[in-house]
Amino acid sequence: MPDLKYDVLGIGNAIVDVLARAEDDFLARQNMNKGGMALIDEARAQAIYDAMGPAIEISGGSAANTIVGVAGFGARAAFVGKVKDDQLGQAFAHDIRAAGVAFDTAPAADGPSTARCYVLVTPDGERTMNTYLGAAQDLHPADVDEDAVGGAAITYLEGYLWDPPRAKEAFRKAATIAHGAGRQVALTLSDAFCVGRYRAEFLDLIRTGTVDLVFANESELKSLYEATDFDTAAAALRGDAKLAVVTRSEKGCVVLSKDGSVSVPAAPISKLVDATGAGDLFAAGFLFGLARGRDHRTAARLGVLAAAEVIQHLGARPEVSLKTLAEKAGLPV
Amino acid sequence: MPDLKYDVLGIGNAIVDVLARAEDDFLARQNMNKGGMALIDEARAQAIYDAMGPAIEISGGSAANTIVGVAGFGARAAFVGKVKDDQLGQAFAHDIRAAGVAFDTAPAADGPSTARCYVLVTPDGERTMNTYLGAAQDLHPADVDEDAVGGAAITYLEGYLWDPPRAKEAFRKAATIAHGAGRQVALTLSDAFCVGRYRAEFLDLIRTGTVDLVFANESELKSLYEATDFDTAAAALRGDAKLAVVTRSEKGCVVLSKDGSVSVPAAPISKLVDATGAGDLFAAGFLFGLARGRDHRTAARLGVLAAAEVIQHLGARPEVSLKTLAEKAGLPV
Repeated sequence: MPDLKYDVLGIGNAIVDVLARAEDDFLARQNMNKGGMALIDEARAQAIYDAMGPAIEISGGSAANTIVGVAGFGARAAFVGKVKDDQLGQAFAHDIRAAGVAFDTAPAADGPSTARCYVLVTPDGERTMNTYLGAAQDLHPADVDEDAVGGAAITYLEGYLWDPPRAKEAFRKAATIAHGAGRQVALTLSDAFCVGRYRAEFLDLIRTGTVDLVFANESELKSLYEATDFDTAAAALRGDAKLAVVTRSEKGCVVLSKDGSVSVPAAPISKLVDATGAGDLFAAGFLFGLARGRDHRTAARLGVLAAAEVIQHLGARPEVSLKTLAEKAGLPV
Repeated sequence: MPDLKYDVLGIGNAIVDVLARAEDDFLARQNMNKGGMALIDEARAQAIYDAMGPAIEISGGSAANTIVGVAGFGARAAFVGKVKDDQLGQAFAHDIRAAGVAFDTAPAADGPSTARCYVLVTPDGERTMNTYLGAAQDLHPADVDEDAVGGAAITYLEGYLWDPPRAKEAFRKAATIAHGAGRQVALTLSDAFCVGRYRAEFLDLIRTGTVDLVFANESELKSLYEATDFDTAAAALRGDAKLAVVTRSEKGCVVLSKDGSVSVPAAPISKLVDATGAGDLFAAGFLFGLARGRDHRTAARLGVLAAAEVIQHLGARPEVSLKTLAEKAGLPV
């Protein structure tokens, strides 16, 4: 078994968020599904950008946000994802490294530009996402380094990886390496529409044990089992997965395992500013706790703490030290 | 005289801010003058970027921020400044147009990349700036359109324009057109170190009436007259300028004219988050008021209102409608 180098290694789409405030009628005029993530081509990306208001550029990507959160707790973290060697790609690389994450994936020298996600934040704090995958489409199994994955206690993968053509091969290669090295593999279902696109494959990953831990929110869970009832879907997931965590927004989360279920309430917030990154940062706290050998309840409490931090400001990455935040809350770091 | 097309037209360096939080000891290690703006070359830009923390990219530029503020009050506004046709230049153009500003300066097709300002925000909310001028250096008198400047009630120029080699010619051309069309010309002194670089020329612009209105903060005012005493320097400026406004941070501002001086207190704030853009947005409110024919006190109240908005969040451009804000405060828009 390779030496333990990382607590958590994440693989995902390397994306820069282009974030603007928008009114609900803007979403309606643009035929956007509020709260969802839509894949868009370059022409649609341009049309949305032309129509939307002044924006800020801020590094994003679901698994990348999670890994930055893991590093924010003081853990050793690494990320694998593909940018182009352009200005936005350089910003992505700078930001994730400056957050203390090892990021060694070679940027693409040509081809499409760095992936962008146009994030429209409505006055209620909900975010609606439109992703142009760009260079992220070129993530390749060769980008997955055996020593890095084998040296990570947990390898964390995003369901969004099923969208770029070759990334699922990178995903499968990583899972094989991780399990071969006696490590754990975690998956987030990413988005209800993403689950709709790849339902059978995701269920297969879970039922065959290719993933040891699954993260889902309520709508992803219901989409996975095409169920309208939460309890029915949760019971099905508990039967299928070794370990699963379902996040329920202001209702907190529930951890599902063979031993039963554990519910943890959401951490209190002053004001919901921008929901972007809530699920990503929950996963960061939970994964950090798990990698450090904490029980499920403690891991979930680290998760809700990190989620509460990120939804109280614009952007999907923490603005303060999660380690300090956890210490102040009396949680082990 | 050309038809009146714009209330205010601004000319300045077109810059994207790369904004990160930093501790005071980071500034010390990097030999930065806290609160000031330093010009840096490309190598130094890279060194600072490598050392600084995770950042967000957000359109900036002093006069550009002001002009966005003017548009935010509901006025007709235009901006002249040079970007390159790269990702950051495209973001700058998108953001200023999306804010309702006319922006028709042709981007540079080659040469240095779009200007960046590395803004380090310390825990006290103060910002320390390092500017790589890049493509902004290529602003040329040919970029100044006679109809646009002649059609603007006020042309607003930043002292920073003295830094790029040919921009001061663009500045002088614009002032000549504006006065030829019977319009007003305003200047901000920009920065105490900038005043130190061009003191004699700035005094000449003011004393010869090349500018009708001067904006300065306390340290710029003191630098202009190499004075340690505020009252002495203010009296000197009142003698030299047709009209001047000195901003004094939490002490508000004082308007200096032949008729005497008018003091207006700062608008109340909940918390100083990021001082970036305070002076720029003060100028936006004052210029808007002036262009609409308001008295100096009312114009200054519009200025302190806009400044208070921008210092309560990250970034130098308003996040809410200044028109609505002014209406709520009972000010005329």
